[in-house]
Amino acid sequence: MTAVAAPTALDDLRRALAEVADLQRAAAVLGWDQETCMPPGGVEDRANQLATLLSLAHERFTSPEVARLLDRAETEVAGLAPESDEGSLVRVTRRDVTEASRLPAALVAEQARESARARPVWQEARQRSDWSRFAPAMERMVDLSRRIAEAFGYPDRPYDALIARTEPGLTTARVEGLFAQVREAVVPLLRELETHAERAGDSLMDRPCPEDQQMAFALRTIVNLGYDLERGRQDLSAHPFCISFGPGDVRLTTRLGRTLGESCLYSSIHEAGHALYEQGIPRSLDRTPLWDGASPGIHESQSRLWENLIGRSLPFCEWLVPRLREVFPATLEGADAATFWQAVNRVRPTYIRVDADEVTYNLHILLRFEIENELLEGRLGVADVPEAWAQRLHDYLGLERPGDREGPLQDIHWTDGLGGFVGYTLGNLVSAQLLAAVRRELTDLDGRLARGEFAALLGWLRDRVHRHGRKFTPDELVRRATGQAIVAEPWIAYVREKFGELYRV
Amino acid sequence: MTAVAAPTALDDLRRALAEVADLQRAAAVLGWDQETCMPPGGVEDRANQLATLLSLAHERFTSPEVARLLDRAETEVAGLAPESDEGSLVRVTRRDVTEASRLPAALVAEQARESARARPVWQEARQRSDWSRFAPAMERMVDLSRRIAEAFGYPDRPYDALIARTEPGLTTARVEGLFAQVREAVVPLLRELETHAERAGDSLMDRPCPEDQQMAFALRTIVNLGYDLERGRQDLSAHPFCISFGPGDVRLTTRLGRTLGESCLYSSIHEAGHALYEQGIPRSLDRTPLWDGASPGIHESQSRLWENLIGRSLPFCEWLVPRLREVFPATLEGADAATFWQAVNRVRPTYIRVDADEVTYNLHILLRFEIENELLEGRLGVADVPEAWAQRLHDYLGLERPGDREGPLQDIHWTDGLGGFVGYTLGNLVSAQLLAAVRRELTDLDGRLARGEFAALLGWLRDRVHRHGRKFTPDELVRRATGQAIVAEPWIAYVREKFGELYRV
Repeated sequence: MTAVAAPTALDDLRRALAEVADLQRAAAVLGWDQETCMPPGGVEDRANQLATLLSLAHERFTSPEVARLLDRAETEVAGLAPESDEGSLVRVTRRDVTEASRLPAALVAEQARESARARPVWQEARQRSDWSRFAPAMERMVDLSRRIAEAFGYPDRPYDALIARTEPGLTTARVEGLFAQVREAVVPLLRELETHAERAGDSLMDRPCPEDQQMAFALRTIVNLGYDLERGRQDLSAHPFCISFGPGDVRLTTRLGRTLGESCLYSSIHEAGHALYEQGIPRSLDRTPLWDGASPGIHESQSRLWENLIGRSLPFCEWLVPRLREVFPATLEGADAATFWQAVNRVRPTYIRVDADEVTYNLHILLRFEIENELLEGRLGVADVPEAWAQRLHDYLGLERPGDREGPLQDIHWTDGLGGFVGYTLGNLVSAQLLAAVRRELTDLDGRLARGEFAALLGWLRDRVHRHGRKFTPDELVRRATGQAIVAEPWIAYVREKFGELYRV
Repeated sequence: MTAVAAPTALDDLRRALAEVADLQRAAAVLGWDQETCMPPGGVEDRANQLATLLSLAHERFTSPEVARLLDRAETEVAGLAPESDEGSLVRVTRRDVTEASRLPAALVAEQARESARARPVWQEARQRSDWSRFAPAMERMVDLSRRIAEAFGYPDRPYDALIARTEPGLTTARVEGLFAQVREAVVPLLRELETHAERAGDSLMDRPCPEDQQMAFALRTIVNLGYDLERGRQDLSAHPFCISFGPGDVRLTTRLGRTLGESCLYSSIHEAGHALYEQGIPRSLDRTPLWDGASPGIHESQSRLWENLIGRSLPFCEWLVPRLREVFPATLEGADAATFWQAVNRVRPTYIRVDADEVTYNLHILLRFEIENELLEGRLGVADVPEAWAQRLHDYLGLERPGDREGPLQDIHWTDGLGGFVGYTLGNLVSAQLLAAVRRELTDLDGRLARGEFAALLGWLRDRVHRHGRKFTPDELVRRATGQAIVAEPWIAYVREKFGELYRV
């Protein structure tokens, strides 16, 4: 060990990285404000402010000073365990800096600019349900994603580069294998459930639910799960999201709806899953590249776990329904936990991804993933996306061709380029792996849920997932938590068992 | 003239200054969020983020690149009129850069961090009414203000440096002279009015006023004055303030109270005065050091003018009271415009500055100004502030010693260091100078106010004050607008006349 008082390159590196983190977090505050508070006139000022903050963060992160400190810090941490805070910090920072340096600043700026331009074009095309209006912007986004993939480099297929940027360690071929397993299990399961559709009554979800009580009830519920209001808050926005400005300030937003099914409850539980993750990353990793979720997929495993595997389980419904009835007596009249559980798990192919049930959801992601790959590899033209969409919607979900609004224009993601969907399915798979591990290690999970005791489950997640922040790749993290890399079997077993029981098949 | 297409040093300078403005505005968004939204756990993260943003802004503003561009731009604008956008930009930037260069970046960062930390300490000390809890933080702020004054330099007294940073061209001695005139006029006037206290009935102000309607009514009122909601919004905060993130986003906050006197109406009008100013600075000055109010004092002249000289005038009350009665019929029962006018102008020494009437308000500022000077010059210790406070409160306002909460802990300002109060009195003086000029140049002002026609007055202010942004020093601006530098006589004449009429003395 070196002398305690000597300043190290690692200390200096931490200081430089802290500044980058502060700039990114300031941009996050500005983004949150834009979605929740900003008056319409603020758009132009805000775009300038965000561009300045993010390009300064990029400039400083890829500066010669950080490169020099990183070289020296690598020597300093050479003897430390790779999972130590210091060893992980240097390893992950090296990976991030290397990757960030591969993308020319002009390309990053061009993507930001084109995204900002594509946003209103998409909004108008969606409103008019006319893909051809969005097609020119989509051409540019496909071209940009291709150029980003080329600049970044990839072993085999362009999509590999897009995955590597968000889910390090995974490849297109690996994801295709997981998707194939999911498809082969789900498509026949769906057909079978559809022949017994009458066994899951869901009219309860269409009952009116007074909007003025929804937010307060959802907030009480997620506080019960463990969301810490001393370090968070809940607001309204057009699209629900979770965002962090540091360990002491992790916020979520939600939106209201007129019926029980459209109420904010499950959207809040979903976002709380993200928020519990970030509130659980230790302050010792603060203001470094390690203070974050491991990847979008791992993040989604937390939101999905709380929303679906816990939130839509029968024991959870047994705890929830009496509480729900106190606040919404008319809505819940005559409904017990079992009725609610059936209704909140209705399986029914939908055009809209965000309305999809647990069984069909991954098929929505699969079709997007396939279309993105064909676009990137030049096997599909942008003009033909609606046709390709309709074909798969029919094959996977048995639905007729939708209008463009309910088809390829429904998601905002492509205004940011391609590659943004795969994390959702990875999250679903990982959530089932985690839950299976929890059931092996934690006694009487169902009893705990039915009694509203969530602390042991949250403690397990804190220990196996949250406390590591971004130290490990998705596969490494899942292997440490469950003994296995990311696989599809636990999720397939989970949906077969759950929906087999629900539909008595 | 040089070739049109040639890029100039001025263009490059504008780009560099725009980045600095973006960083400062991002910090402003973070500050707004801290006061209106941020959960308690966010304090530490936020302090770091603000320190990083402000020290980066400082670093870039005082960079060799800006200095080099400024040298070249000075040559480019040498032939232009000093009041031209370009000439003013270079002149004011030179002054700002020179002044900013005197302060080491570490000192700026330290002040930002200490301010953010002092905030919750002050809150707790205030809640417990215990100055000794705040004293250590106050010691640090006095020390920081002293070090800032030393680094900045001053001709005569340390406070000169603090004034020069905010009210360029003014000195401690000049302000003392203005204060002496005010005190000599006000103290005898106050004694005289107190002997006729029964002539201004004010019980109307103590009537209950339903809180749920206050914000909406205040918002409608300030929209009538000219506040543009496309480029603004109103929120609640513990202490009302106005803040801008650019010409397209100028926000204000307010707070509610149970009685008419404590309602948010006049606080909103006050903040709207600030907001009208910033919404009136042209976009052509945007993202430069010129896009701002001329000084805190000039800013306060706008808020005070709308709140007091307009808002508490009889003609304005004639317009307001019928509208107020529609929304708050029980509160206004039996009260006419004249009754309301008397009540809203009650003169009565108070402990709390923000509750003070027009006559006594400046005495609250005077006592703070004197205490700040004594602290800076080492003639008073931090522990003895409550005693010094009590002494002056007795001498100027005839009040007995208050608890610390109603004494030196009532204002948040010292969490930002010293020197933040003098602008209030300057603003009062200037508001009376401006109103006198308006009356000379605009026909039938009282008739316009009584009919709710505020556009001509706002137009005059836009033309004489707002459109210049930060081009001129306070004295220059007031001379251009009224023909005279800042003086006390118009304000003294205004209070003598108004309160003489109110109290029939």
